[in-house]
Amino acid sequence: MRPLVAVDWGTSSLRVARVGSDGTVLEERTSDRGILSVPAGSFPETLRETCGDWLNQPDVLCLVSGMAGSRQGWQEAPYCTCPAGFADVAHALAWIEPGRIALVPGLCFEFLDTPDALRGEEVQVFGAMDLLHLDDGVFVLPGTHCKWVRVAEARVQSFATFMSGEFYSLLRQQSILARTMPDEDGPLEEAAFLRGVHHAQQARSLLHSAFSARTLALFDILPTQALPSYLSGLVIGEELRARALHGLEVVLIGAPALTERYALALHTLGCASHRLGSEATWRGHWALARTLQKA
Amino acid sequence: MRPLVAVDWGTSSLRVARVGSDGTVLEERTSDRGILSVPAGSFPETLRETCGDWLNQPDVLCLVSGMAGSRQGWQEAPYCTCPAGFADVAHALAWIEPGRIALVPGLCFEFLDTPDALRGEEVQVFGAMDLLHLDDGVFVLPGTHCKWVRVAEARVQSFATFMSGEFYSLLRQQSILARTMPDEDGPLEEAAFLRGVHHAQQARSLLHSAFSARTLALFDILPTQALPSYLSGLVIGEELRARALHGLEVVLIGAPALTERYALALHTLGCASHRLGSEATWRGHWALARTLQKA
Repeated sequence: MRPLVAVDWGTSSLRVARVGSDGTVLEERTSDRGILSVPAGSFPETLRETCGDWLNQPDVLCLVSGMAGSRQGWQEAPYCTCPAGFADVAHALAWIEPGRIALVPGLCFEFLDTPDALRGEEVQVFGAMDLLHLDDGVFVLPGTHCKWVRVAEARVQSFATFMSGEFYSLLRQQSILARTMPDEDGPLEEAAFLRGVHHAQQARSLLHSAFSARTLALFDILPTQALPSYLSGLVIGEELRARALHGLEVVLIGAPALTERYALALHTLGCASHRLGSEATWRGHWALARTLQKA
Repeated sequence: MRPLVAVDWGTSSLRVARVGSDGTVLEERTSDRGILSVPAGSFPETLRETCGDWLNQPDVLCLVSGMAGSRQGWQEAPYCTCPAGFADVAHALAWIEPGRIALVPGLCFEFLDTPDALRGEEVQVFGAMDLLHLDDGVFVLPGTHCKWVRVAEARVQSFATFMSGEFYSLLRQQSILARTMPDEDGPLEEAAFLRGVHHAQQARSLLHSAFSARTLALFDILPTQALPSYLSGLVIGEELRARALHGLEVVLIGAPALTERYALALHTLGCASHRLGSEATWRGHWALARTLQKA
């Protein structure tokens, strides 16, 4: 395998890794130079400043995933249509320097005449598939916009975006619910969190259930410091209700503090889960590079 | 009937009416002195400044509904528990000046160990029941926190709060969806609105469906100026999905611009509706006064 520089270039951060031929991460660097902070035309220079030494290696391959491939990024890498597996995405790479630096395209999927899209998460799912030797499964990537990805026959068949992290922040900080909440979230209060998860299974919409985060305080049933945990349970619980899991096993990929909450919510609903962190990202770049070199 | 001064004292506005013995509204005044702008202890004075001339009538009765009866208001009027009809609420009035000035209590209702509450809307529902000669029905009061109220045997049996107006504002103005939307809402685009209503019937959660307000613009399927109407349709449509109406007829009470949207959404889903405005509020005060004087 050629030396690989893996780049995960998101909206607010830039992370790079030098990956060995067996997939081992040799070195990792992180900066706050997300695409929103990079002026148009300055992407090559920013990448050089971050890992120019690595890019100087002979025969290097550099794969860039994430929002750098969006209209607001380095260059638009058109979405790859589902179903999409390793070979489909490798084939659809948008080359910046032919054979040397490429943008990984995101995926798009249409359901009920309505498109959905992701960028960057496809690499994490590929990494998780490779690490766990899975050709089928449900992969969940919690965050501002949580992605639920269904894989079958080693290809992403479909996915759905849930704006859960963003809804939580808006309700927590900007809505009437904020008035009865403490300034800081504090540590997770598990009982209140699980109460929220269970309540969401009975409620038919967060539009309604969210109001209970106010009335439970108004009627002195929950202490105010438990409300952020309760609201978090309502939001994550609503997501799980909408997905109708029924005992399915899912793979969670993301920051430990978040995947822990999802694992807790899944467990209380009788679903098993497996948790992965950033190792999935770099493994996904490596698996794509391997596919590319086999082709 | 004694002369009636009806007061609708909400969070951000104070509205008063002088109501004739047959229920006719003789005179109406509106001010911006909602409870949030009134210092503790200044409620009697504020009311006198607004309609002291009316209160000087001999044998006058003054009924105050809305947030003035909350903990943050004039004085807390404890919630009346559902089921609650005219007589239950008349019996539970919190008298400020015995026999002369009273606060109308709100209602509370518990479902799945979770309380819900309203203040002020009970009077509007009573007014609508009286105006339309209804002892049974579903009453919907759209707004920041939309209330769905079920009446049977002339008593409110249950209700549910949907934070629809607030969710719409937060998503419209503070979320990622705002980035692809015009600064101003503009007039309602009916086709986009109805598309949102119908999409919401298929989607299982607004957490997911809301993201389509972004992707439909991203993929150039909807023009950006249609997005606020589409999002409004998604939110109202989600509410109707959660209520599972199946051809029911509902009574809409509220500002014409809002009840019109609900009527449109209900119609496209095969439900009839009847619309009322502020006349329901004053009629509700009058019907309560009548109940009180009969007792």
